[in-house]
Amino acid sequence: MAFLVFEGIDGAGKSTLISSLQQRLLEQKQEVVITREPGGTPLGEALRQLLLKTDGDIPVPRAELLLYEAIRAQHVERVIKPALQKKQWILCDRYTSSTLAFQAGGRELDSQPIQWLNFFATDGVEPNLFILLDLPPTEGQNRMQAREKDRFEIEELSFHERVRNYYLKLASEKPNQWLVLNALQSPQSLFEQLLHHLEKQSW
Amino acid sequence: MAFLVFEGIDGAGKSTLISSLQQRLLEQKQEVVITREPGGTPLGEALRQLLLKTDGDIPVPRAELLLYEAIRAQHVERVIKPALQKKQWILCDRYTSSTLAFQAGGRELDSQPIQWLNFFATDGVEPNLFILLDLPPTEGQNRMQAREKDRFEIEELSFHERVRNYYLKLASEKPNQWLVLNALQSPQSLFEQLLHHLEKQSW
Repeated sequence: MAFLVFEGIDGAGKSTLISSLQQRLLEQKQEVVITREPGGTPLGEALRQLLLKTDGDIPVPRAELLLYEAIRAQHVERVIKPALQKKQWILCDRYTSSTLAFQAGGRELDSQPIQWLNFFATDGVEPNLFILLDLPPTEGQNRMQAREKDRFEIEELSFHERVRNYYLKLASEKPNQWLVLNALQSPQSLFEQLLHHLEKQSW
Repeated sequence: MAFLVFEGIDGAGKSTLISSLQQRLLEQKQEVVITREPGGTPLGEALRQLLLKTDGDIPVPRAELLLYEAIRAQHVERVIKPALQKKQWILCDRYTSSTLAFQAGGRELDSQPIQWLNFFATDGVEPNLFILLDLPPTEGQNRMQAREKDRFEIEELSFHERVRNYYLKLASEKPNQWLVLNALQSPQSLFEQLLHHLEKQSW
Protein backbone atom coordinates (compact mmCIF):
# COMPACT_ATOMS: atom_id res chain seq x y z
CA MET A 1 0.00 0.00 0.00
CA ALA A 2 0.98 3.66 -0.35
CA PHE A 3 -0.31 7.18 0.15
CA LEU A 4 -0.18 8.86 -3.28
CA VAL A 5 -0.94 12.52 -4.00
CA PHE A 6 -1.87 13.66 -7.51
CA GLU A 7 -0.96 17.24 -8.36
CA GLY A 8 -1.19 19.58 -11.30
CA ILE A 9 -3.22 22.42 -12.74
CA ASP A 10 -6.87 21.77 -13.56
CA GLY A 11 -7.29 19.96 -16.84
CA ALA A 12 -4.01 18.04 -16.47
CA GLY A 13 -5.81 14.69 -16.17
CA LYS A 14 -5.60 13.89 -12.44
CA SER A 15 -9.10 12.37 -12.23
CA THR A 16 -8.56 10.05 -15.19
CA LEU A 17 -5.23 8.80 -13.83
CA ILE A 18 -6.64 8.28 -10.32
CA SER A 19 -9.54 6.37 -11.75
CA SER A 20 -7.30 4.09 -13.88
CA LEU A 21 -5.10 3.28 -10.90
CA GLN A 22 -8.08 2.68 -8.65
CA GLN A 23 -9.43 0.19 -11.23
CA ARG A 24 -6.14 -1.67 -11.40
CA LEU A 25 -5.77 -1.84 -7.61
CA LEU A 26 -9.32 -3.13 -7.18
CA GLU A 27 -8.61 -5.86 -9.75
CA GLN A 28 -5.68 -6.82 -7.54
CA LYS A 29 -8.07 -7.02 -4.54
CA GLN A 30 -6.37 -4.08 -2.82
CA GLU A 31 -8.31 -1.73 -0.56
CA VAL A 32 -8.37 1.79 -1.99
CA VAL A 33 -9.51 5.13 -0.59
CA ILE A 34 -10.14 7.90 -3.14
CA THR A 35 -10.17 11.36 -1.63
CA ARG A 36 -9.45 14.98 -2.41
CA GLU A 37 -8.59 18.42 -1.10
CA PRO A 38 -10.13 20.82 -0.51
CA GLY A 39 -12.84 18.46 0.74
CA GLY A 40 -12.64 14.81 1.71
CA THR A 41 -14.97 15.14 4.73
CA PRO A 42 -18.51 16.55 5.15
CA LEU A 43 -17.05 19.59 6.95
CA GLY A 44 -14.40 19.98 4.26
CA GLU A 45 -16.91 19.78 1.43
CA ALA A 46 -19.05 22.46 3.12
CA LEU A 47 -15.98 24.69 3.48
CA ARG A 48 -14.96 23.99 -0.13
CA GLN A 49 -18.22 25.58 -1.26
CA LEU A 50 -17.42 28.74 0.74
CA LEU A 51 -13.90 28.83 -0.70
CA LEU A 52 -14.49 28.36 -4.40
CA LYS A 53 -17.46 30.64 -4.95
CA THR A 54 -16.78 33.84 -6.82
CA ASP A 55 -19.30 36.21 -5.20
CA GLY A 56 -20.24 37.43 -1.71
CA ASP A 57 -17.71 37.87 1.12
CA ILE A 58 -14.56 36.55 -0.66
CA PRO A 59 -11.93 35.29 1.83
CA VAL A 60 -8.86 37.54 2.16
CA PRO A 61 -5.60 35.67 1.37
CA ARG A 62 -4.72 34.82 5.00
CA ALA A 63 -8.29 33.63 5.68
CA GLU A 64 -8.25 31.55 2.51
CA LEU A 65 -5.01 29.89 3.53
CA LEU A 66 -6.29 29.14 7.05
CA LEU A 67 -9.49 27.63 5.64
CA TYR A 68 -7.52 25.28 3.39
CA GLU A 69 -5.50 24.21 6.39
CA ALA A 70 -8.63 23.67 8.51
CA ILE A 71 -10.04 21.41 5.78
CA ARG A 72 -6.70 19.58 5.71
CA ALA A 73 -6.56 19.01 9.49
CA GLN A 74 -10.05 17.47 9.41
CA HIS A 75 -9.14 15.38 6.35
CA VAL A 76 -5.94 14.02 7.87
CA GLU A 77 -7.60 13.02 11.15
CA ARG A 78 -10.81 11.59 9.71
CA VAL A 79 -9.63 10.04 6.42
CA ILE A 80 -5.85 9.81 5.92
CA LYS A 81 -4.73 8.56 9.34
CA PRO A 82 -7.50 5.89 9.60
CA ALA A 83 -6.68 4.64 6.06
CA LEU A 84 -2.96 4.48 6.88
CA GLN A 85 -3.74 2.45 9.99
CA LYS A 86 -5.80 -0.01 7.93
CA LYS A 87 -2.94 -0.22 5.41
CA GLN A 88 -5.19 0.91 2.56
CA TRP A 89 -4.04 2.61 -0.63
CA ILE A 90 -4.84 6.32 -0.55
CA LEU A 91 -5.20 8.17 -3.86
CA CYS A 92 -5.56 11.83 -3.00
CA ASP A 93 -6.34 14.61 -5.48
CA ARG A 94 -4.24 17.56 -4.19
CA TYR A 95 -2.57 17.98 -0.75
CA THR A 96 -0.02 20.27 0.94
CA SER A 97 1.80 20.85 -2.35
CA SER A 98 -1.29 22.51 -3.87
CA THR A 99 -1.33 25.07 -1.09
CA LEU A 100 2.32 25.88 -1.71
CA ALA A 101 1.87 26.05 -5.49
CA PHE A 102 -1.31 28.17 -5.45
CA GLN A 103 -0.66 30.43 -2.43
CA ALA A 104 3.13 30.84 -2.50
CA GLY A 105 3.44 30.38 -6.28
CA GLY A 106 0.19 31.78 -7.67
CA ARG A 107 -0.66 34.37 -5.02
CA GLU A 108 3.00 35.07 -4.17
CA LEU A 109 2.51 34.78 -0.39
CA ASP A 110 5.52 34.07 1.81
CA SER A 111 6.16 30.30 1.74
CA GLN A 112 7.39 30.01 5.35
CA PRO A 113 4.04 30.40 7.13
CA ILE A 114 2.52 28.03 4.57
CA GLN A 115 5.10 25.39 5.40
CA TRP A 116 4.44 25.91 9.12
CA LEU A 117 0.68 25.59 8.54
CA ASN A 118 1.06 22.53 6.31
CA PHE A 119 3.02 20.78 9.02
CA PHE A 120 0.59 21.80 11.75
CA ALA A 121 -2.52 20.80 9.77
CA THR A 122 -1.16 17.42 8.63
CA ASP A 123 0.43 16.64 12.01
CA GLY A 124 3.50 15.83 9.91
CA VAL A 125 1.79 13.13 7.77
CA GLU A 126 3.43 13.07 4.33
CA PRO A 127 2.57 10.94 1.29
CA ASN A 128 4.93 8.29 -0.09
CA LEU A 129 4.84 10.02 -3.46
CA PHE A 130 3.64 13.22 -5.14
CA ILE A 131 2.72 12.66 -8.80
CA LEU A 132 2.83 15.88 -10.82
CA LEU A 133 0.93 15.98 -14.09
CA ASP A 134 2.83 18.82 -15.68
CA LEU A 135 1.05 20.80 -18.38
CA PRO A 136 1.43 24.26 -19.97
CA PRO A 137 -1.40 26.42 -18.52
CA THR A 138 -2.68 27.38 -21.99
CA GLU A 139 -3.28 23.70 -22.70
CA GLY A 140 -5.01 23.23 -19.31
CA GLN A 141 -7.31 26.16 -20.03
CA ASN A 142 -8.23 24.81 -23.48
CA ARG A 143 -9.23 21.53 -21.87
CA MET A 144 -11.32 23.29 -19.18
CA GLN A 145 -13.31 25.67 -21.40
CA ALA A 146 -16.53 23.69 -21.21
CA ARG A 147 -16.73 23.84 -17.40
CA GLU A 148 -18.00 26.63 -15.16
CA LYS A 149 -14.93 28.27 -13.66
CA ASP A 150 -14.16 28.58 -9.92
CA ARG A 151 -12.13 31.23 -8.11
CA PHE A 152 -8.75 29.89 -9.22
CA GLU A 153 -9.78 29.04 -12.74
CA ILE A 154 -10.71 32.66 -13.45
CA GLU A 155 -7.18 33.85 -12.57
CA GLU A 156 -5.08 35.10 -15.47
CA LEU A 157 -2.50 33.04 -17.32
CA SER A 158 0.52 34.44 -15.43
CA PHE A 159 -1.02 33.14 -12.16
CA HIS A 160 -1.20 29.62 -13.60
CA GLU A 161 2.35 29.92 -14.94
CA ARG A 162 3.57 30.72 -11.42
CA VAL A 163 1.62 27.73 -10.05
CA ARG A 164 3.20 25.42 -12.61
CA ASN A 165 6.69 26.71 -11.96
CA TYR A 166 6.24 26.31 -8.21
CA TYR A 167 5.24 22.67 -8.66
CA LEU A 168 8.37 22.08 -10.74
CA LYS A 169 10.50 23.77 -8.08
CA LEU A 170 9.02 21.55 -5.33
CA ALA A 171 9.67 18.46 -7.44
CA SER A 172 13.25 19.46 -8.17
CA GLU A 173 13.94 20.06 -4.46
CA LYS A 174 12.82 16.55 -3.42
CA PRO A 175 13.26 14.31 -6.48
CA ASN A 176 12.81 11.09 -4.47
CA GLN A 177 9.37 12.18 -3.28
CA TRP A 178 8.11 13.36 -6.68
CA LEU A 179 7.29 11.77 -10.03
CA VAL A 180 6.89 14.37 -12.78
CA LEU A 181 4.91 13.25 -15.84
CA ASN A 182 4.45 15.20 -19.05
CA ALA A 183 0.66 15.51 -19.17
CA LEU A 184 0.60 16.21 -22.91
CA GLN A 185 0.88 12.44 -23.36
CA SER A 186 -2.12 10.12 -23.74
CA PRO A 187 -3.91 8.89 -20.58
CA GLN A 188 -2.76 5.35 -21.38
CA SER A 189 0.88 6.40 -21.62
CA LEU A 190 0.66 8.35 -18.33
CA PHE A 191 -0.88 5.35 -16.59
CA GLU A 192 1.87 3.01 -17.84
CA GLN A 193 4.61 5.35 -16.66
CA LEU A 194 2.98 5.59 -13.23
CA LEU A 195 2.66 1.78 -12.95
CA HIS A 196 6.28 1.37 -14.03
CA HIS A 197 7.39 3.81 -11.33
CA LEU A 198 5.24 2.19 -8.63
CA GLU A 199 6.63 -1.28 -9.43
CA LYS A 200 10.13 -0.09 -8.58
CA GLN A 201 9.12 1.05 -5.07
CA SER A 202 9.47 -0.95 -1.89
CA TRP A 203 6.61 0.49 0.19
CA MET B 1 -10.83 56.25 20.31
CA ALA B 2 -9.64 52.76 21.30
CA PHE B 3 -9.90 49.11 20.32
CA LEU B 4 -11.43 47.31 23.32
CA VAL B 5 -11.90 43.55 23.64
CA PHE B 6 -14.44 42.11 26.09
CA GLU B 7 -13.64 38.67 27.44
CA GLY B 8 -15.08 36.16 29.85
CA ILE B 9 -17.15 33.00 30.06
CA ASP B 10 -20.68 33.07 28.67
CA GLY B 11 -23.13 34.63 31.09
CA ALA B 12 -20.52 37.02 32.54
CA GLY B 13 -22.31 40.08 31.14
CA LYS B 14 -20.20 41.11 28.13
CA SER B 15 -23.17 42.09 25.95
CA THR B 16 -24.72 44.32 28.61
CA LEU B 17 -21.43 46.10 29.27
CA ILE B 18 -20.71 46.58 25.56
CA SER B 19 -24.18 47.97 25.05
CA SER B 20 -23.85 50.45 27.97
CA LEU B 21 -20.52 51.73 26.69
CA GLN B 22 -21.81 51.99 23.13
CA GLN B 23 -24.72 54.12 24.42
CA ARG B 24 -22.39 56.44 26.31
CA LEU B 25 -20.01 56.84 23.36
CA LEU B 26 -22.87 57.60 20.98
CA GLU B 27 -24.13 60.27 23.40
CA GLN B 28 -20.64 61.77 23.14
CA LYS B 29 -20.95 61.77 19.30
CA GLN B 30 -18.19 59.20 18.94
CA GLU B 31 -18.17 56.70 16.07
CA VAL B 32 -18.48 53.15 17.39
CA VAL B 33 -18.13 49.75 15.73
CA ILE B 34 -19.65 46.80 17.62
CA THR B 35 -18.32 43.45 16.49
CA ARG B 36 -17.63 39.93 17.70
CA GLU B 37 -15.68 36.74 17.23
CA PRO B 38 -16.25 34.19 15.98
CA GLY B 39 -18.12 36.15 13.34
CA GLY B 40 -17.97 39.82 12.47
CA THR B 41 -18.16 39.30 8.68
CA PRO B 42 -20.60 37.40 6.43
CA LEU B 43 -17.96 34.71 5.87
CA GLY B 44 -17.22 34.59 9.61
CA GLU B 45 -20.87 34.28 10.57
CA ALA B 46 -21.30 31.40 8.07
CA LEU B 47 -18.27 29.67 9.59
CA ARG B 48 -19.54 30.35 13.11
CA GLN B 49 -22.60 28.23 12.32
CA LEU B 50 -20.37 25.33 11.25
CA LEU B 51 -18.26 25.69 14.40
CA LEU B 52 -20.85 25.91 17.12
CA LYS B 53 -23.28 23.20 16.03
CA THR B 54 -23.28 20.05 18.11
CA ASP B 55 -24.08 17.40 15.45
CA GLY B 56 -22.73 16.22 12.08
CA ASP B 57 -19.02 16.30 11.17
CA ILE B 58 -17.63 17.99 14.32
CA PRO B 59 -14.28 19.73 13.67
CA VAL B 60 -11.26 17.97 15.21
CA PRO B 61 -9.31 20.25 17.61
CA ARG B 62 -6.69 21.39 15.04
CA ALA B 63 -9.42 22.08 12.43
CA GLU B 64 -11.46 23.98 15.00
CA LEU B 65 -8.48 26.16 15.88
CA LEU B 66 -7.69 26.87 12.21
CA LEU B 67 -11.32 27.82 11.55
CA TYR B 68 -11.29 30.33 14.40
CA GLU B 69 -8.14 31.83 12.98
CA ALA B 70 -9.60 32.00 9.45
CA ILE B 71 -12.60 33.89 10.83
CA ARG B 72 -10.18 36.19 12.67
CA ALA B 73 -8.06 36.96 9.59
CA GLN B 74 -11.18 37.96 7.64
CA HIS B 75 -12.46 40.00 10.60
CA VAL B 76 -9.20 41.91 11.06
CA GLU B 77 -8.88 42.80 7.36
CA ARG B 78 -12.51 43.65 6.72
CA VAL B 79 -13.61 45.22 10.03
CA ILE B 80 -10.83 45.97 12.54
CA LYS B 81 -8.21 47.54 10.27
CA PRO B 82 -10.73 49.78 8.41
CA ALA B 83 -12.20 50.98 11.74
CA LEU B 84 -8.73 51.72 13.12
CA GLN B 85 -7.94 53.74 10.01
CA LYS B 86 -11.14 55.76 10.48
CA LYS B 87 -10.24 56.29 14.15
CA GLN B 88 -13.48 54.70 15.34
CA TRP B 89 -14.06 53.04 18.69
CA ILE B 90 -14.11 49.26 18.35
CA LEU B 91 -15.97 47.23 20.97
CA CYS B 92 -15.23 43.59 20.21
CA ASP B 93 -16.83 40.62 21.96
CA ARG B 94 -13.95 38.06 22.18
CA TYR B 95 -10.63 38.07 20.28
CA THR B 96 -7.24 36.26 20.40
CA SER B 97 -7.50 35.81 24.16
CA SER B 98 -10.64 33.65 23.79
CA THR B 99 -8.75 31.25 21.54
CA LEU B 100 -5.97 30.96 24.12
CA ALA B 101 -8.40 30.54 27.02
CA PHE B 102 -10.67 27.99 25.30
CA GLN B 103 -8.14 26.00 23.24
CA ALA B 104 -5.01 26.15 25.42
CA GLY B 105 -6.92 26.45 28.72
CA GLY B 106 -10.15 24.53 28.12
CA ARG B 107 -8.98 21.97 25.55
CA GLU B 108 -5.42 21.87 26.92
CA LEU B 109 -3.77 22.26 23.48
CA ASP B 110 -0.18 23.52 23.31
CA SER B 111 -0.25 27.32 23.57
CA GLN B 112 2.71 27.97 21.25
CA PRO B 113 1.01 27.16 17.92
CA ILE B 114 -2.01 29.16 19.10
CA GLN B 115 0.19 32.19 19.73
CA TRP B 116 1.77 31.77 16.30
CA LEU B 117 -1.67 31.49 14.67
CA ASN B 118 -3.05 34.47 16.61
CA PHE B 119 -0.21 36.62 15.38
CA PHE B 120 -0.53 35.37 11.79
CA ALA B 121 -4.33 35.80 11.68
CA THR B 122 -4.35 39.29 13.22
CA ASP B 123 -1.31 40.45 11.26
CA GLY B 124 -0.08 41.62 14.68
CA VAL B 125 -3.07 43.91 15.38
CA GLU B 126 -3.64 44.07 19.15
CA PRO B 127 -6.34 45.89 21.12
CA ASN B 128 -5.58 48.76 23.47
CA LEU B 129 -7.26 46.90 26.30
CA PHE B 130 -8.68 43.48 27.16
CA ILE B 131 -11.55 43.71 29.66
CA LEU B 132 -12.10 40.46 31.56
CA LEU B 133 -15.45 39.92 33.22
CA ASP B 134 -14.37 37.32 35.70
CA LEU B 135 -17.02 34.96 37.04
CA PRO B 136 -17.08 31.51 38.70
CA PRO B 137 -18.27 29.03 36.03
CA THR B 138 -21.09 27.72 38.24
CA GLU B 139 -22.53 31.24 38.32
CA GLY B 140 -22.14 31.62 34.54
CA GLN B 141 -23.99 28.36 33.98
CA ASN B 142 -26.85 29.37 36.27
CA ARG B 143 -27.27 32.56 34.27
CA MET B 144 -27.22 30.67 30.93
CA GLN B 145 -29.71 27.94 31.76
CA ALA B 146 -32.55 29.41 29.74
CA ARG B 147 -30.57 29.43 26.46
CA GLU B 148 -29.94 26.59 24.00
CA LYS B 149 -26.36 25.50 24.55
CA ASP B 150 -23.62 25.48 21.87
CA ARG B 151 -20.54 23.25 21.60
CA PHE B 152 -18.61 25.01 24.35
CA GLU B 153 -21.52 25.54 26.67
CA ILE B 154 -22.14 21.78 26.89
CA GLU B 155 -18.58 21.17 28.17
CA GLU B 156 -18.29 20.10 31.79
CA LEU B 157 -17.51 22.41 34.69
CA SER B 158 -13.78 21.56 34.83
CA PHE B 159 -13.43 22.80 31.22
CA HIS B 160 -14.89 26.17 32.18
CA GLU B 161 -12.69 26.30 35.30
CA ARG B 162 -9.62 25.88 33.06
CA VAL B 163 -10.91 28.62 30.72
CA ARG B 164 -11.39 31.01 33.63
CA ASN B 165 -7.95 30.27 35.08
CA TYR B 166 -6.31 30.80 31.70
CA TYR B 167 -7.92 34.22 31.36
CA LEU B 168 -6.61 35.17 34.80
CA LYS B 169 -3.13 33.92 33.84
CA LEU B 170 -3.15 36.03 30.64
CA ALA B 171 -4.27 39.09 32.62
CA SER B 172 -1.56 38.60 35.26
CA GLU B 173 1.14 38.28 32.58
CA LYS B 174 0.28 41.64 30.95
CA PRO B 175 -1.39 43.75 33.65
CA ASN B 176 -1.14 46.96 31.59
CA GLN B 177 -3.12 45.44 28.74
CA TRP B 178 -5.86 43.93 30.93
CA LEU B 179 -8.64 45.21 33.18
CA VAL B 180 -10.10 42.45 35.37
CA LEU B 181 -13.58 43.12 36.75
CA ASN B 182 -15.45 40.97 39.27
CA ALA B 183 -18.57 40.09 37.28
CA LEU B 184 -20.59 39.21 40.37
CA GLN B 185 -21.17 42.96 40.75
CA SER B 186 -24.18 44.79 39.31
CA PRO B 187 -24.07 45.88 35.62
CA GLN B 188 -24.10 49.52 36.78
CA SER B 189 -21.09 49.00 39.03
CA LEU B 190 -19.16 47.20 36.25
CA PHE B 191 -19.92 50.02 33.85
CA GLU B 192 -18.71 52.67 36.29
CA GLN B 193 -15.45 50.84 36.93
CA LEU B 194 -14.86 50.52 33.20
CA LEU B 195 -15.52 54.25 32.62
CA HIS B 196 -13.23 55.15 35.50
CA HIS B 197 -10.45 53.03 33.98
CA LEU B 198 -10.96 54.45 30.47
CA GLU B 199 -10.82 58.03 31.75
CA LYS B 200 -7.29 57.45 33.02
CA GLN B 201 -6.00 56.32 29.60
CA SER B 202 -4.28 58.51 27.05
CA TRP B 203 -5.29 56.77 23.78
